[in-house]
Amino acid sequence: MGTPHRFCDVRNLTETLAEPLGPEDQTVQSMADVSPTKWHRAHVTWFFEEFVLGPTIESYGVFHPQYSYLFNSYYEAVGPRHPRARRGAVSRPTVDDVTAYRRAVDVAMIDMLDAGVDDEVAALVELGLHHEQQHQELLLMDAKHVLSQSVLDPVYRKGGAPNPHDDRPVGWIEHDGGLVEIGAEEHAFAYDNELPRHRVHLEPFALADRPVTCGEWLEFIDDGGYERPELWLSDGWAEVCAGTFDAPMYWRDDGDWSVFTLHGRVPLDPQEPVCHVSYYEADAFAQWAGARLPTEAEWEVVASQYTDGPDFDTERLHPVAAGPEPEFFGRVWEWTSSSYSPYPGFRPGPGAIGEYNGKFMVGQQVLRGGCCATPPGHIRSTYRNFFPPPARWAFSGLRLARD
Amino acid sequence: MGTPHRFCDVRNLTETLAEPLGPEDQTVQSMADVSPTKWHRAHVTWFFEEFVLGPTIESYGVFHPQYSYLFNSYYEAVGPRHPRARRGAVSRPTVDDVTAYRRAVDVAMIDMLDAGVDDEVAALVELGLHHEQQHQELLLMDAKHVLSQSVLDPVYRKGGAPNPHDDRPVGWIEHDGGLVEIGAEEHAFAYDNELPRHRVHLEPFALADRPVTCGEWLEFIDDGGYERPELWLSDGWAEVCAGTFDAPMYWRDDGDWSVFTLHGRVPLDPQEPVCHVSYYEADAFAQWAGARLPTEAEWEVVASQYTDGPDFDTERLHPVAAGPEPEFFGRVWEWTSSSYSPYPGFRPGPGAIGEYNGKFMVGQQVLRGGCCATPPGHIRSTYRNFFPPPARWAFSGLRLARD
Amino acid sequence: MGTPHRFCDVRNLTETLAEPLGPEDQTVQSMADVSPTKWHRAHVTWFFEEFVLGPTIESYGVFHPQYSYLFNSYYEAVGPRHPRARRGAVSRPTVDDVTAYRRAVDVAMIDMLDAGVDDEVAALVELGLHHEQQHQELLLMDAKHVLSQSVLDPVYRKGGAPNPHDDRPVGWIEHDGGLVEIGAEEHAFAYDNELPRHRVHLEPFALADRPVTCGEWLEFIDDGGYERPELWLSDGWAEVCAGTFDAPMYWRDDGDWSVFTLHGRVPLDPQEPVCHVSYYEADAFAQWAGARLPTEAEWEVVASQYTDGPDFDTERLHPVAAGPEPEFFGRVWEWTSSSYSPYPGFRPGPGAIGEYNGKFMVGQQVLRGGCCATPPGHIRSTYRNFFPPPARWAFSGLRLARD
Amino acid sequence: MGTPHRFCDVRNLTETLAEPLGPEDQTVQSMADVSPTKWHRAHVTWFFEEFVLGPTIESYGVFHPQYSYLFNSYYEAVGPRHPRARRGAVSRPTVDDVTAYRRAVDVAMIDMLDAGVDDEVAALVELGLHHEQQHQELLLMDAKHVLSQSVLDPVYRKGGAPNPHDDRPVGWIEHDGGLVEIGAEEHAFAYDNELPRHRVHLEPFALADRPVTCGEWLEFIDDGGYERPELWLSDGWAEVCAGTFDAPMYWRDDGDWSVFTLHGRVPLDPQEPVCHVSYYEADAFAQWAGARLPTEAEWEVVASQYTDGPDFDTERLHPVAAGPEPEFFGRVWEWTSSSYSPYPGFRPGPGAIGEYNGKFMVGQQVLRGGCCATPPGHIRSTYRNFFPPPARWAFSGLRLARD
Repeated sequence: MGTPHRFCDVRNLTETLAEPLGPEDQTVQSMADVSPTKWHRAHVTWFFEEFVLGPTIESYGVFHPQYSYLFNSYYEAVGPRHPRARRGAVSRPTVDDVTAYRRAVDVAMIDMLDAGVDDEVAALVELGLHHEQQHQELLLMDAKHVLSQSVLDPVYRKGGAPNPHDDRPVGWIEHDGGLVEIGAEEHAFAYDNELPRHRVHLEPFALADRPVTCGEWLEFIDDGGYERPELWLSDGWAEVCAGTFDAPMYWRDDGDWSVFTLHGRVPLDPQEPVCHVSYYEADAFAQWAGARLPTEAEWEVVASQYTDGPDFDTERLHPVAAGPEPEFFGRVWEWTSSSYSPYPGFRPGPGAIGEYNGKFMVGQQVLRGGCCATPPGHIRSTYRNFFPPPARWAFSGLRLARD
Repeated sequence: MGTPHRFCDVRNLTETLAEPLGPEDQTVQSMADVSPTKWHRAHVTWFFEEFVLGPTIESYGVFHPQYSYLFNSYYEAVGPRHPRARRGAVSRPTVDDVTAYRRAVDVAMIDMLDAGVDDEVAALVELGLHHEQQHQELLLMDAKHVLSQSVLDPVYRKGGAPNPHDDRPVGWIEHDGGLVEIGAEEHAFAYDNELPRHRVHLEPFALADRPVTCGEWLEFIDDGGYERPELWLSDGWAEVCAGTFDAPMYWRDDGDWSVFTLHGRVPLDPQEPVCHVSYYEADAFAQWAGARLPTEAEWEVVASQYTDGPDFDTERLHPVAAGPEPEFFGRVWEWTSSSYSPYPGFRPGPGAIGEYNGKFMVGQQVLRGGCCATPPGHIRSTYRNFFPPPARWAFSGLRLARD
Repeated sequence: MGTPHRFCDVRNLTETLAEPLGPEDQTVQSMADVSPTKWHRAHVTWFFEEFVLGPTIESYGVFHPQYSYLFNSYYEAVGPRHPRARRGAVSRPTVDDVTAYRRAVDVAMIDMLDAGVDDEVAALVELGLHHEQQHQELLLMDAKHVLSQSVLDPVYRKGGAPNPHDDRPVGWIEHDGGLVEIGAEEHAFAYDNELPRHRVHLEPFALADRPVTCGEWLEFIDDGGYERPELWLSDGWAEVCAGTFDAPMYWRDDGDWSVFTLHGRVPLDPQEPVCHVSYYEADAFAQWAGARLPTEAEWEVVASQYTDGPDFDTERLHPVAAGPEPEFFGRVWEWTSSSYSPYPGFRPGPGAIGEYNGKFMVGQQVLRGGCCATPPGHIRSTYRNFFPPPARWAFSGLRLARD
Repeated sequence: MGTPHRFCDVRNLTETLAEPLGPEDQTVQSMADVSPTKWHRAHVTWFFEEFVLGPTIESYGVFHPQYSYLFNSYYEAVGPRHPRARRGAVSRPTVDDVTAYRRAVDVAMIDMLDAGVDDEVAALVELGLHHEQQHQELLLMDAKHVLSQSVLDPVYRKGGAPNPHDDRPVGWIEHDGGLVEIGAEEHAFAYDNELPRHRVHLEPFALADRPVTCGEWLEFIDDGGYERPELWLSDGWAEVCAGTFDAPMYWRDDGDWSVFTLHGRVPLDPQEPVCHVSYYEADAFAQWAGARLPTEAEWEVVASQYTDGPDFDTERLHPVAAGPEPEFFGRVWEWTSSSYSPYPGFRPGPGAIGEYNGKFMVGQQVLRGGCCATPPGHIRSTYRNFFPPPARWAFSGLRLARD
């Protein structure tokens, strides 16, 4: 934790992920929720400058006096900042400028780490690395959205070779309910929102042993899933009526269904987990299937018994079909019916760092499991991802539950 | 339940509440969330026509063929309907037309009830009466918003005489937590969203024995409550920055603070419960106070030990200050930190009636307790009211909790 | 001019026109451009109070201290005012309150006029009466829009009996062009925007001898008029693509075409002038017809040779078909290709009154001719009406011109 | 006209102007009105491909089948196209791809021109070159807006050295009015909107002999110009109240006034023509100065007597102060009081090319004179530029007139 070696590994992975993206790709903000690649690369760097180097190294001089304004995401305590929805309106600093910024901060960080740091600083470095890993996934999902805007169907990276697999029916894992424990243990790294570990009472339930597949989603579409208001939450149906969606994001029907991926546009594979659906769609599908979405406690208590998932693979940034065994990790983020709220006894961190999680605890739903674009170390059974119900540009799918 | 006598009582109360409102007052829709008084009066009538008289009395002919289009609120299964945000654009039918509609449906209903109905119909009548009571409160809060739009500060009804009371510090009710039960019992009337009764595990906590007062809110304002981002949820702070609020709704500072009520504009009483605050404001206040909002389970398990509250009084439609004893009911609706979601094992009713509650179970927070404008029979410890986090035109206040 | 008799005539006509409208009708604001009837009735009254009684009668006390805030339309020099788009959000003062206001101001005005006034005051009274007449037409077109919002197709006043007429082909009136004079003479009443009379050079042109009819518009629709971008101005085509219009306002196609009028919904009469079209539609029609819209100078120089039109008739507030002779007045306002701009040498009036016309001289098109809802005295060949290009709720039609 | 040499000159100038802009700069769309540099470079290329090469060279194969979709600006007759406001959402094709596209089309064009073309094709080539010159100015004003979004105040090109000049009071050029002729002669190149030459009658007037300066605008600001509603058109005052502007675009007051230019941020020079003001501001200034804006006919009839202006200079893309003589060209575009409408007898070109000008003839004001960013050949006394009244990102200033 906090070693120069680990620091370089994480930082280098960001650059590896950005490498297939040219200056144009790294500049575009295709919607307000998306940030440009070069912004991600600079923002995670600013995090180290603002929260580690600045407070720790007395002689440290910031790389550029305006970068705090440009690359602060949402830390009110730090000062004013460039409006989020206007990140794509700024052509300067350029991609090369950002590369230089990253290098300068890396040098200072490695110097500091080589010299040794106390536990408090080490913890901040560790938080900064986890923060950067989170942005690695954001970088990928944002870049996918950017590339998808062009009728040219650009390819981020060739690959994503076919993934041979058999048709595999869903199985159900039963659980007796009762008093269970969820949340992170204190000894390993976890975000504040995963704490404290606490007890929850559950009624008996069953959980599907794999996510819903594209083939199952096609049945939902064919059965009028997007045309039957009785299946939908009221807000979701309003989106359908407004024409916001009639299939998962990135799907296209030209006679045959295809799907846009980071490896270009490919034919839809019915065995793969369905991906890029909103909470509204996930809930409607569950209604249609005569089931429901799991709560996050139900999900965690079952998933914590399983640990294997496919490795993070920069050559394959697309969810693979489930194998023969139950699996919970590394394919798609799975919407739960739990809104994102504090665990009993939740305490945010001190100072500006405390703005990390708690202030988003309203109006969002929890997702669990990690996806094909989640870097190593960000997949664990207690991890709580969250998005607003209409969001679809994350690698978000679902798993069914029933009483 | 379902007797002609009870039917008339509920129906007449609606007319009593509408009586101080002239045709102009009954027509205006002051924002999209508000419905005109005449619409409320007609909509609850249509409910009986659509769900009781039509299916039950074979020979029943609807009062007007277009009223289903005009007065259906949100039942997708029933057919197309007038857009909600345009209810105030329609001058016809007039208030007198609506009165005639109400009378005609009342006559048919009373004939039917006099002749006797089976249990299933009786249950639908009961649901219709509870539905009308819900709209009685909506009518009042909507009318208050309408009247508040005029610089003339119109008076709905004179009264609301001073409410003598002493300054009263907050007390704390402690609870050991553990496995508790919440939700309605099956034998009394309850909405589907209060069911089923089920177990929840709680950590130890304490609950304030009265709602937060206006005087305490003034301290919050004076201490920069609306100017300190660290107190706020991110979405709430965005509203503050957009200028949406800097004090509770209906408050005005002309040197001295006054508040608009259904009894006109009056000086602010520091002892009264604060009212007309959003979830964002309630949460920020709790942060400021070093406390938090209770979960709905915490609230219910404590409140169910208390039952007294002030009687519903059409002469005093404004929250009264708490007395010396702990109280939980009939002053203001109290925001909880719980999002509005289904209880384990929740089952919506069949058919169109099933659209009553479940389809709103996302993006809203639960409020508990009932307020000064809540009619008798709508105040109970298991009752779950819900509004989106920015809403303020309900009589919404808060109570503090702490670990 | 300015006599008590004339004063009463104009004021009484306003009340006659409002009489079929109940309190609900008089309160609704069906879109931002529309004002409630009760607002019109109060605003024209405030004009006399603010600009005549207040400055003239030293002892005059305003009827209500807040009415200036509520009923000032747009006079910045007078002070702050209620937002235009929120006029329909205000239920108080009521219709009866407005009636009392009108009576009080009438009494004061008649006392003053009986006592005799100097020329300057007489001119302000005359301006106030013309102002009220303008609002009489606005009241009618706004009330029509309000009533049209209800699926009940309400009837403002029974009548509008069939208007027997023969099919009548269009004729063309040729003009040699050259140096002509337009604008009002100084000796009769005219608005500042009609002044000064000045010379304009015209190329030879021809003008149709009647407005375009509904029958001709049906041919336009049948020939794909709303589907062919090459006919449309760019901004107009954007509106078509946005679904804003596909036929004149108030038209409906249920197999047969009908049209909503102040006399209820009636079958479309192909001989009647087409009405309630936007400038964009008028221009597209002219393109389709191989013609163009006239300039206001072309229109005026020809129309000034004709004076007859149908009388203003409160029993028939719908345009009648053209007779056998050329006619220019009292059916529909006719869009011209001239934008609304100052005549050479234009001088606005002094003080607040000067805000009457000049400040609207951008982004609007001139209409000429007067319509079936234009009161006597507001139809003259030099009169310049104006609306923004997308507006359709005025009684706006068109007449063709060609080189 | 239409020679390979001229073709290369114009095409090369575009590349020269784009050269200081990196891939990031060329990709950003900073507001809906702005187009990315790479889009401009591709769009003008597509114009030659679509309207010249395709129809002329039978064997011509388009460079890429999707480029017509991506780079058609507004030609409805050509087919569907990428939405204008989303041009900045597309990262591909890249800047290099666009360069390759330009080269391929240049080769085909030069081959064709070398082989000789008939008059009709030559006229289309000429139109294409004028079209590209128009976009050269748009490229510069758009790039200026893009660069201005960054707090880094990026420099497009160093330079814009001080321009020594004396303080110079305004002089007035008087004109007797009467019947004059405006519009282009048939023998030289002109857009369809400059035709036909025709007679206009003018009243006597005087025109300032130079544009309004920054120093004069500072006086306007200091005299409360942005705070006095009586100076403003109603729509303009609404913008002021909405906070849209309180000084010309690109001005900033940090104690001293500075202005953002293509040469970076520089101190405000009071002698320079004021630039980047909207029509509303120009009109308000004229009111304040006791003058008015000229009509386009007044402007043209006087300006046609003068021809000199500063040369187009890529080292100085900022308006220079007026010299001692009257001047009308090459500093700032000057707002006129004339709305953009067809001249009497106007005929748009045939086919898709006919969409070039006529369909924008509503809701815009004419500007005259050409500016520092206008390439050679686009400055002439009959040239009609046009923008909507709120637009400010063009190099738009004003000149006063009076009766």
